[in-house]
Amino acid sequence: MKLASKLLVAVLLVVFTAMPALAEKTIKWKLAMTWPSTLTPLASPPIKLAEMVEKMSGGKFLIKVEGKEKHKAALGILDMVKGGQYQMGHSASYYWKGKDMSMVFFTTVPFGMNAEEQYAWFYYDEGMKLMEKAYDKFKVLSFPGGNTGVQMGGWFRKEIKSLDDLKGLKMRIPGLAGEVFAKLGVNVTNIPAGELYTSLDRGTIDALEWVGPGMDIKMGFHKIAPYYYTGWHEPASEMQFLINKRAYAKLPPEYQEMLQVAMKATAADMFSENFGASANAWAKMKTEYPNIKVKTFPTPVLKAMKKATDELLNGYAAKDPQFKTILDSQRAFMKKARAWTLISEYNYIKTSEELEK
Amino acid sequence: MKLASKLLVAVLLVVFTAMPALAEKTIKWKLAMTWPSTLTPLASPPIKLAEMVEKMSGGKFLIKVEGKEKHKAALGILDMVKGGQYQMGHSASYYWKGKDMSMVFFTTVPFGMNAEEQYAWFYYDEGMKLMEKAYDKFKVLSFPGGNTGVQMGGWFRKEIKSLDDLKGLKMRIPGLAGEVFAKLGVNVTNIPAGELYTSLDRGTIDALEWVGPGMDIKMGFHKIAPYYYTGWHEPASEMQFLINKRAYAKLPPEYQEMLQVAMKATAADMFSENFGASANAWAKMKTEYPNIKVKTFPTPVLKAMKKATDELLNGYAAKDPQFKTILDSQRAFMKKARAWTLISEYNYIKTSEELEK
Repeated sequence: MKLASKLLVAVLLVVFTAMPALAEKTIKWKLAMTWPSTLTPLASPPIKLAEMVEKMSGGKFLIKVEGKEKHKAALGILDMVKGGQYQMGHSASYYWKGKDMSMVFFTTVPFGMNAEEQYAWFYYDEGMKLMEKAYDKFKVLSFPGGNTGVQMGGWFRKEIKSLDDLKGLKMRIPGLAGEVFAKLGVNVTNIPAGELYTSLDRGTIDALEWVGPGMDIKMGFHKIAPYYYTGWHEPASEMQFLINKRAYAKLPPEYQEMLQVAMKATAADMFSENFGASANAWAKMKTEYPNIKVKTFPTPVLKAMKKATDELLNGYAAKDPQFKTILDSQRAFMKKARAWTLISEYNYIKTSEELEK
Repeated sequence: MKLASKLLVAVLLVVFTAMPALAEKTIKWKLAMTWPSTLTPLASPPIKLAEMVEKMSGGKFLIKVEGKEKHKAALGILDMVKGGQYQMGHSASYYWKGKDMSMVFFTTVPFGMNAEEQYAWFYYDEGMKLMEKAYDKFKVLSFPGGNTGVQMGGWFRKEIKSLDDLKGLKMRIPGLAGEVFAKLGVNVTNIPAGELYTSLDRGTIDALEWVGPGMDIKMGFHKIAPYYYTGWHEPASEMQFLINKRAYAKLPPEYQEMLQVAMKATAADMFSENFGASANAWAKMKTEYPNIKVKTFPTPVLKAMKKATDELLNGYAAKDPQFKTILDSQRAFMKKARAWTLISEYNYIKTSEELEK
């Protein structure tokens, strides 16, 4: 080779070695979520995360977000991320209680922590460590993915005045709360979202639980059920980002960090989005349907719910060491967290309210 | 030139044109914060933001964070960012009320929104738009930078049983709350942080306001003042990131987005960090100093504080159209937000508490 040719080869070698950015091709990931793409605010965190990551990477890390309308497997997210068909998922941990009962703790439990308390447990107590350990067997990573805050207790066609009114009541309420209601004599059923309005309207069911005003208003339940009960069963439902561990390990560290930061930002954002939507929807509902009555279950009913909840949780803990470890961790932190909530956030709203009288 | 040489030049031209990443040199920014570098959780958001941005950019966007111990200008942050000595700052908007009274709304106001309500106002109502407009004249951008939640009303040596007990009381309390207390006859003083403990211990002052258990515990006030009053004056103090507008405009869009996402993530994170620290510190204080008495000001005192607050705010609004616009926006959103808080977060804690009785 001539000198110039040798030089050319040498320069190219140096240039390509020093420039991983050029060598790197665009990384394309897919994310499957439990919700239809239009179901905000639940669908907002993954959609916004994909936008953030695309912009931060200069278009080199692309995440295609697919809703339930596309993959048709709302409750198959964990399996699909574990199997690698999707590198990421967005769902809620309590959907996996059939695989492992402990998973409920990473969403919410009846009479558990509120969102502020639970985020402090995740990030400044044992939550993240316990979640990582619990998900290790699925070979996926799990991260907080947006909180709904306190969910409403549901829409009822008739007032619940005593425990007797619950006996034989037909209600759509999933999860642990459904198990609690079943213990109190409620006839718990599950009905697809698309049939809920008609079922409630025709009296096929007497009551149902959904989320809160921001999401409930689109379903129209307030037009047909006059009693809106306050919440006890999902005080801080945390959504969830899932990532396939092998796919994550192969990412350049820059992109790993982008995911970490964007997950935190979008989770916090969903909490605000849902709060804002509920504040606006509740103002609209009250104006357009002034006869909606907000009710809290009578104390004897709530006491029975609390007792049934504790029996259920203690029962699972007795059979499952992992469940017990996480339950103990939440209870210990909640005790300290609630003592602080009572003299800060709670007392402030209480005091402000008394001044309005 | 020989063919090989020509080829060499051509190849190099193509390579360097196609590779902005190589041409780009490392970008180095400086951030000045109001707090000493050790004052967590207030100092946490900028420190964590710098780490995130460094990792996400693969070490190409570096932000050097300087605390008060370095630049000695705790309350000069806005001027230094405006002037371009620092590209970024971390502080709190209400420190700029001497330049423009409206700035208080982007931190907190007495009897105002709590953190959840205020974040919804920022991101899903008019808050961000109003803040951008208000800061435009300083040629800086301002973003939420972490929330303390409800701050405690302060440490008092004597119990406050009536409005009379406030007359002539010597108290360290800054900001709008200080103006409110002054209207009620309190002798409001400002004392440097380092002298507070001794001043309270020796009776140079009768009371002082700081933050909450997580930060107060390091100051030791609980050892010398038995009454810990609940909060009314800073229900959701939001810290602030400041960015010089020209410096921001010169950043590649990738780095602009990294800043935006990291600011959101670190702001949410500080809220959890402070909540966790307060929950733990409060548990510790109560155990080690069981005689601490948590008190809420009597209703007539709170009513007088509320009246004085409204008079102050309405007075500023009458003279300043921008102040009025922002006050009206906060009041309108707060009305909807609080109605929702009352039936969700507040009712949930209230109900749970009643079950403990």
